[in-house]
Amino acid sequence: MKVATVAGGVTTPRGFKASGVGVGIKRGEGQLDLALLAADRPAAAAAVFTTNRAQAAPVVVSREHLRASGGFARAIIVNSGCANACTGEQGLEAARAMAADTARLLGCRPEEVLVASTGVIGVALPIDRIRRGLPSAIAALGDDQGAAAARAIMTTDPFPKESAARLVAGGRPVAIGGMAKGSGMIEPKLATMLAFLTTDAAAPPPLLDRALREAVAVTFNAITVDGECSTNDCVMLLASGASGATLTDAEYPAFVSALTAVCRELALGIVRGGEGATKLIAVTVTGAATEDEARRAAKTIANSPLVKTAIHGGDPNWGRLVAAAGRADVAFDLARASAAIGPMTLFRDGQPHDEAAPEAAAYLRANAEIEVTVHLGAGSASATVWTCDLSAEYVRINAEYRT
Amino acid sequence: MKVATVAGGVTTPRGFKASGVGVGIKRGEGQLDLALLAADRPAAAAAVFTTNRAQAAPVVVSREHLRASGGFARAIIVNSGCANACTGEQGLEAARAMAADTARLLGCRPEEVLVASTGVIGVALPIDRIRRGLPSAIAALGDDQGAAAARAIMTTDPFPKESAARLVAGGRPVAIGGMAKGSGMIEPKLATMLAFLTTDAAAPPPLLDRALREAVAVTFNAITVDGECSTNDCVMLLASGASGATLTDAEYPAFVSALTAVCRELALGIVRGGEGATKLIAVTVTGAATEDEARRAAKTIANSPLVKTAIHGGDPNWGRLVAAAGRADVAFDLARASAAIGPMTLFRDGQPHDEAAPEAAAYLRANAEIEVTVHLGAGSASATVWTCDLSAEYVRINAEYRT
Repeated sequence: MKVATVAGGVTTPRGFKASGVGVGIKRGEGQLDLALLAADRPAAAAAVFTTNRAQAAPVVVSREHLRASGGFARAIIVNSGCANACTGEQGLEAARAMAADTARLLGCRPEEVLVASTGVIGVALPIDRIRRGLPSAIAALGDDQGAAAARAIMTTDPFPKESAARLVAGGRPVAIGGMAKGSGMIEPKLATMLAFLTTDAAAPPPLLDRALREAVAVTFNAITVDGECSTNDCVMLLASGASGATLTDAEYPAFVSALTAVCRELALGIVRGGEGATKLIAVTVTGAATEDEARRAAKTIANSPLVKTAIHGGDPNWGRLVAAAGRADVAFDLARASAAIGPMTLFRDGQPHDEAAPEAAAYLRANAEIEVTVHLGAGSASATVWTCDLSAEYVRINAEYRT
Repeated sequence: MKVATVAGGVTTPRGFKASGVGVGIKRGEGQLDLALLAADRPAAAAAVFTTNRAQAAPVVVSREHLRASGGFARAIIVNSGCANACTGEQGLEAARAMAADTARLLGCRPEEVLVASTGVIGVALPIDRIRRGLPSAIAALGDDQGAAAARAIMTTDPFPKESAARLVAGGRPVAIGGMAKGSGMIEPKLATMLAFLTTDAAAPPPLLDRALREAVAVTFNAITVDGECSTNDCVMLLASGASGATLTDAEYPAFVSALTAVCRELALGIVRGGEGATKLIAVTVTGAATEDEARRAAKTIANSPLVKTAIHGGDPNWGRLVAAAGRADVAFDLARASAAIGPMTLFRDGQPHDEAAPEAAAYLRANAEIEVTVHLGAGSASATVWTCDLSAEYVRINAEYRT
């Protein structure tokens, strides 16, 4: 079931306040760099974290807190401008202090506060600035400040990313909201993806966790800008219960559909705002032996620099699609394989059909949202992964000297 | 044992002749596009082929011939300008015809001829031009024509790649020679790596195969330009026995060292000539749990666009090295990890040492050959992988419209 999203963000669901303030972590006048998301009462909480083994301090601390609280949280405190990653014991202390100060000011326990950071790696977190700035973040909290929070978590994202959706559960209107930041960071020079989601449904933490993992698998985990995986990635979801609706097995599918819609809009926003991106590319793999193989093949194609540069250049180079699928280490039968760019099939059952190439080239030039499809000829499973093209601008952004 | 290479190529070992001629596959006046390497008598042969499952017709045919001949070959015929990949049954027939015609003209059996192609994918091989041109390739054969053959296998490689080494085996002088082409192809727009090696030692095919695999593992399989793996990659080795020396277990280590030296020189030439490359980067991973994990971590770092762009931009961004190692899915202990750029250690035992960053930046700017080292803190195994930087020129080359 596809759910349409609505305008809104993390404060669209009832029971949440947010703020975004500047505390001097980023350079430059008036830059927002501290975001606070607070629930009026302890909210059920779920989170997924980066699989990178060089886990940043805030990831370690948020994991600990989620475990200690048994899946409940009152607030999420996020800074941009410094990732607090590869910072040793000092970094862990800073992340813990950030949570403890927030807890003290909100009147809750430290383990009820989750922490996230994004920005330059290997630099000590300016914890004193955050501590001095926290009271202003508390003072600015409002149920209309979701947009300010969405701006405060940005690094060099070209635009803020917010989304919301509505559904009816148990006869009551329920809202889901979210904000995210993506991969467009000159300062940090590392693609960190952060997303924060809220709902005013009530849900036990295990059910919330299941819903979050289900939605993330086909959205945030199905996008790739450059195949990198940050030390700081996380997606967090808080459920306030303020709608009066309690999530049960009956409403679960509708809730997951709405949550997935919000996650998809945020995830595609991250790809659209990818470093140097000019095109959003949906890579669909069909005819795979298993769904996992379909996803792996789609990721290999989506991360192929030759595929990404070809689409950037408007070249209907189906050979690169087939070659990328061939090296994905999944079941693949060249004699039964096919490849299409948009609706134009350029390779079918192992044979080229280049007569459609001029049309495919026109399609690539005319559209900002591109669909490519590769059939592996090995089964009936499929999957879609989203990516962006690779431009000279990506290289320029990432090669600029870190000041 | 490191062996120094000498000037020379595939005709440096006795018993081989080569030629490079133009038969009109590539556009443009006087372009060499057909290379022939012929042994005076049947030579022991070994080969390794691409692991891509979309295997090109010449790969399929060469595999068949090597099996049918029991590991012997009289000649290798190679064309550039057309990969004969994704070309269906017609492509297989063309590759077989190319071998059969060469065999007829040389007076040997078709299965004694190996075939290779490089160039644009999904386009029918102009087999008539090759057949018409073959007599001129035979007529041009000479034991001083290795350089012409090395030029004829190029696509947009910026320079030809040849190497040779000498050793003494069983009291007799033995030579090893080789030529390779790499990844700098606008026309094919797919990075095909081809390498052809010769020796005048005599060796049974199984021993030759073992020596080739051993040398390839630490040379051609330890380089990466963009993580792509072509439909046409192959490395072939012929042993003529014309030196009168027969390879035994006693000489095997010295032979492998010399073969590895030739392969390394050719492999590093491919990286130096990588599309848009301005720097050769040696990525060494130490402290790994196993050699396989060391190699995988080194490949993940070497293929990281963030690492490659940072080095291109002269940015001593050790955080990207650590983050890439962290996502390589190998044993990794952040608290015991370290990272160095050249001789400057910028991260040690989980703590930043940015005081060396200015020196590291100067090192990156001053050198065309860069060494980076990441210690995983998980064991004592190590491996080195070579790559090049990622420049805006790479994007320009690969985004240009295929005419």
